[in-house]
Amino acid sequence: MTNQKVQVGIVGGTGYTGVELLRSLANHPFAEVTMITSRSEQGVAVADMYPNLRGIYRLQFSVPDIEKLKNCDVVFFATPHGVATSMAFELIEAGVKVIDLAADFRIEDLAVWQKWYGIEPASEALMAEAVYGLPEYYREKIKHAKVIANPGCYPTSILLGILPLLKADLVKVDSIIADGKSGVSGAGKGASVAMLGAEMSESFKAYGVNGHRHLPEMQEKMSLLTGQEVGLTFVPHLLPMVRGMESTIYATLKIDKTQAELQALYEAAYENEPFVDVMPAGSLPETRMVKGSNMCRMAIYCPPGGNIVVITSVIDNLVKGAAGQAIQNMNIMFNLPETAGLNQVALLP
Amino acid sequence: MTNQKVQVGIVGGTGYTGVELLRSLANHPFAEVTMITSRSEQGVAVADMYPNLRGIYRLQFSVPDIEKLKNCDVVFFATPHGVATSMAFELIEAGVKVIDLAADFRIEDLAVWQKWYGIEPASEALMAEAVYGLPEYYREKIKHAKVIANPGCYPTSILLGILPLLKADLVKVDSIIADGKSGVSGAGKGASVAMLGAEMSESFKAYGVNGHRHLPEMQEKMSLLTGQEVGLTFVPHLLPMVRGMESTIYATLKIDKTQAELQALYEAAYENEPFVDVMPAGSLPETRMVKGSNMCRMAIYCPPGGNIVVITSVIDNLVKGAAGQAIQNMNIMFNLPETAGLNQVALLP
Amino acid sequence: MTNQKVQVGIVGGTGYTGVELLRSLANHPFAEVTMITSRSEQGVAVADMYPNLRGIYRLQFSVPDIEKLKNCDVVFFATPHGVATSMAFELIEAGVKVIDLAADFRIEDLAVWQKWYGIEPASEALMAEAVYGLPEYYREKIKHAKVIANPGCYPTSILLGILPLLKADLVKVDSIIADGKSGVSGAGKGASVAMLGAEMSESFKAYGVNGHRHLPEMQEKMSLLTGQEVGLTFVPHLLPMVRGMESTIYATLKIDKTQAELQALYEAAYENEPFVDVMPAGSLPETRMVKGSNMCRMAIYCPPGGNIVVITSVIDNLVKGAAGQAIQNMNIMFNLPETAGLNQVALLP
Amino acid sequence: MTNQKVQVGIVGGTGYTGVELLRSLANHPFAEVTMITSRSEQGVAVADMYPNLRGIYRLQFSVPDIEKLKNCDVVFFATPHGVATSMAFELIEAGVKVIDLAADFRIEDLAVWQKWYGIEPASEALMAEAVYGLPEYYREKIKHAKVIANPGCYPTSILLGILPLLKADLVKVDSIIADGKSGVSGAGKGASVAMLGAEMSESFKAYGVNGHRHLPEMQEKMSLLTGQEVGLTFVPHLLPMVRGMESTIYATLKIDKTQAELQALYEAAYENEPFVDVMPAGSLPETRMVKGSNMCRMAIYCPPGGNIVVITSVIDNLVKGAAGQAIQNMNIMFNLPETAGLNQVALLP
Repeated sequence: MTNQKVQVGIVGGTGYTGVELLRSLANHPFAEVTMITSRSEQGVAVADMYPNLRGIYRLQFSVPDIEKLKNCDVVFFATPHGVATSMAFELIEAGVKVIDLAADFRIEDLAVWQKWYGIEPASEALMAEAVYGLPEYYREKIKHAKVIANPGCYPTSILLGILPLLKADLVKVDSIIADGKSGVSGAGKGASVAMLGAEMSESFKAYGVNGHRHLPEMQEKMSLLTGQEVGLTFVPHLLPMVRGMESTIYATLKIDKTQAELQALYEAAYENEPFVDVMPAGSLPETRMVKGSNMCRMAIYCPPGGNIVVITSVIDNLVKGAAGQAIQNMNIMFNLPETAGLNQVALLP
Repeated sequence: MTNQKVQVGIVGGTGYTGVELLRSLANHPFAEVTMITSRSEQGVAVADMYPNLRGIYRLQFSVPDIEKLKNCDVVFFATPHGVATSMAFELIEAGVKVIDLAADFRIEDLAVWQKWYGIEPASEALMAEAVYGLPEYYREKIKHAKVIANPGCYPTSILLGILPLLKADLVKVDSIIADGKSGVSGAGKGASVAMLGAEMSESFKAYGVNGHRHLPEMQEKMSLLTGQEVGLTFVPHLLPMVRGMESTIYATLKIDKTQAELQALYEAAYENEPFVDVMPAGSLPETRMVKGSNMCRMAIYCPPGGNIVVITSVIDNLVKGAAGQAIQNMNIMFNLPETAGLNQVALLP
Repeated sequence: MTNQKVQVGIVGGTGYTGVELLRSLANHPFAEVTMITSRSEQGVAVADMYPNLRGIYRLQFSVPDIEKLKNCDVVFFATPHGVATSMAFELIEAGVKVIDLAADFRIEDLAVWQKWYGIEPASEALMAEAVYGLPEYYREKIKHAKVIANPGCYPTSILLGILPLLKADLVKVDSIIADGKSGVSGAGKGASVAMLGAEMSESFKAYGVNGHRHLPEMQEKMSLLTGQEVGLTFVPHLLPMVRGMESTIYATLKIDKTQAELQALYEAAYENEPFVDVMPAGSLPETRMVKGSNMCRMAIYCPPGGNIVVITSVIDNLVKGAAGQAIQNMNIMFNLPETAGLNQVALLP
Repeated sequence: MTNQKVQVGIVGGTGYTGVELLRSLANHPFAEVTMITSRSEQGVAVADMYPNLRGIYRLQFSVPDIEKLKNCDVVFFATPHGVATSMAFELIEAGVKVIDLAADFRIEDLAVWQKWYGIEPASEALMAEAVYGLPEYYREKIKHAKVIANPGCYPTSILLGILPLLKADLVKVDSIIADGKSGVSGAGKGASVAMLGAEMSESFKAYGVNGHRHLPEMQEKMSLLTGQEVGLTFVPHLLPMVRGMESTIYATLKIDKTQAELQALYEAAYENEPFVDVMPAGSLPETRMVKGSNMCRMAIYCPPGGNIVVITSVIDNLVKGAAGQAIQNMNIMFNLPETAGLNQVALLP
């Protein structure tokens, strides 16, 4: 850590992860945003697009220019899939760290990636530099990574929830079930009829039952971290609210364990984690308990009537599920305090 | 069916199921509400408590008087648990049909009932007259019943969703999982901090993971209707919206079936049901598609990555999950057209 | 009224007023929809676009064909501004009644219309056949009209609220203030960033302060009905909810009147109106008291500290503010019971 | 400013203003909460009541003890009306500053206060020490005050909105109109049927038209600051959302002014204010632009069709309308940077 603040560039910051990066970085003691790019919004002040930033940022969107981005210490990509791939190699050659909030580097198996995303994957050489940015399980690798694949929001909430059980080899790996629910901000800021307030308010639905892109991402990480092929059924749902994600995860115990033993397992797994909170036995997390904050809160239960264990895990999809975790990764990469810029208390009520 | 309309009494109609009974019965061609009781609201016009009824009802709440209730053809109990038990025997002795929207008669096993509800159960004699009011599976018995146990809202959405699979003996019965989500109107109209708008809006949570009263109700009916002991894990959640319930149900196939075969199974199971709609293959129900209506809409899927089948089922918790189903039961009991008074189209958007 | 049901055509029924027309007409005893057109959705079943209509309509969207529309008794235009103008003359020549839910015929002064809408107005000949479809003030003319200009939603709630005071000549006409608030369904079903759930939820704002198209419409009708030039300041606001509109109207009393006298004035003004409800003194309307119904409910107050009188008026913007009022107009035009098809009780809670 | 942090006590911190004080003070560089009292919650950890504070505060609620409170530098009262009055004198005698978030000291005219609040007012001696804590107009007095009357939420948004016009003597003072809208968190955390999510969601209503306690507070301050008796009509409304308040204010210009001149007047009035933001001409504030932040954002307009000027002003009712402004007052009283602890960027989306 030097006196010089980390110089941050953001490519494609017009969406919700962009404004969220700006919000958290506004009060970051050791980093500052020096460049934000958008081809379509060139010359527009970020505070005109996001009036919550009025009086805080004078920054304007500029046309993406890789030469100028090379002056940054780190570049966040808050772009459609594929963009980071196209620029990352040149940036890391120039010594710039890359954190991609899209999916370009999330799946190691490039054939699987191509199948689900339908475009050309990153090169193997580039993937060799990428680390999956879930600090609770990849912290040591993140420290030295040149490229970070910032995890998807569902994978963050579900992996944090299930991994202690999987790593302890306590549950059957062939039939994990994850019932996920997300606020509408997860769908981004693009105009669409389905995400109109008049369509999504006061209603609830499952979607993507036949296959969501976060499924192969989660399956691969579960398999890699446990050394076993994991069978995962994942059903995402859309919540009539803006921010927040809850995942209820079901797994079948292979070995009898009491609720107290499982509680102890989870508390031990995360006792040193600044952004994972295992709630006290008997309590349950609510998404509002993490709104605007980088925390993941969870609880573990053994409900009556079976040998199925239930984990319920909540995050703010835009913070721990996107921009906040990206900043956490940056902090780790630059040897800054991991919580720097991420001390916002959740907004409750 | 005579020229005389069915004379309806409602005991305890100050809550949300009460107003919902009044709303549906307002346009019922063959029934009319002649009495509604509430000890605390005696003399208050129902239209003063529920201004949506202004100009529609002149009825006032009266003190419950069993002698007067005997003049009704049918009495709905929209009361706390235990009230219907205390009055039902005398009413059916007088030839009055009883439909209980509380839980008094929902569980045949009285010991189980007492364990979960903590008060004295109905007598065996009274239970012998009671029929579980899920028309799709108990229609013949409902026709001749004296007492109807109107099902809980979660059981309605979950039983309708899972029973075709269970009855066809296609799934493992020891590990059914039901992930339920309900709007806040399900919690009723009592003042409580947890149900304040400032507490439940823009948030989502699981609750009752350690045991919800609808669990033994569902387990008993699944077991009775399949002849096998069913293992059920049930996690209810609270949605930040007023009306609507969705249940996502997970079961493990014992026998390979294609999605098309399962679709056909469901379409056949409900093809003659006026209030169950199996959505076309590839589509998914949303709670707003049934808002204010007595429909249950559902879809069945075999997601990638396993042998787990998924059903997603939606109802309006206050209509098919309470008052609408009660009226459907009344229609069956009095040999009226089953859809009478229940032709409201869901309010969308 | 003959045995033959009124044959209804709907041009452009893919938006929210379209589905709302279909919802109300589904249970109309004396009318049936025989044709609905949409160039882009040709061949799509209305029940596929609006799943709340599954099992109720078998109708499909067809390409608009004026020759086929001439077989209808009445054609509703739920189209962009200008479309009704282009087809209305030929239809009325063929004896078909026209009800336009857009703005084509709402302003008599064609120069004013052109200034605010920016396109060619209807011809004077066509306007001569048009009547402003606010039944409470134009019922006699509506009976014999060939073309109905169905009022805007804000004008409906505001005109009904202020006209008794204006017609009684009790308030200053140069400084009427109307503070209107609308749910997002008023903005229609077009994809737009500003109407995304993630943008409008949990937020509130004024919009269109520098001039909303409903302003000249209201000003003209107030002036025509009172014979005086009316000065009106109108500020619309966007509510974080789907359905419902409230207008709080402020006017300065010229003559001292007690609250009781004003209450009596309003009750008398609307005592025979089936769809206007003056709430009892001391109570206040809420938009949920009219959700899904064709009612307008209002209250009148003289708050402390001045000679300003306040009216608060609520409607469902899609029903009394659009489709319901259109059907009310149809009923009047065809000498049907004015409430036919419009007996839905508001959905509360 | 010394090295020692300001020691903060909070009396009655179980409500929404309590948790909001804790949230903002959590990151305050120069103050720390050392005591929080609640008779009913004695011994409960604040993080158990407000789980967003888990990991941030170890503080527990203690029984209110005035001797211990005297060890604080400042005591915030987040209590029902009348509590601060009962303890304030003894605290200020001991050199402790008092900031009351209730209404005890908001109205100088004690007879008026008693009329509206119905309980015994503060003594004249105590009132002599109290200053109205609206920094933009009372900053110099706040610096030296012993007791602060933290303004009501409506008065904050409305006074900030109208005072530049009133002080410039540009509008008629006898007919100011303020149409206010508040999120439900303004009603506090007490259990009540009217504030249930099932009651307030998806609905909108006026309330308190016959007289709201914020009316005399605003009228007095307007009159004191302008030297003229001000006539104010105030209609509050309830928004179906948690946080946020918007006020649309209408006043009649006495002198012709262009919109540009009024814009310049407002920009000049607040150019040095850290927490008032006059939006650029042509734009309009939304409540989400201030959610969770201490900003008040406003716009001024001269709509077509009259000489009425319109100001629309937004705040977060719990921050600038309560806890944030209280901390701003504390900062001024203790000569701390006025923005200390108040740098949260509004949460958008």
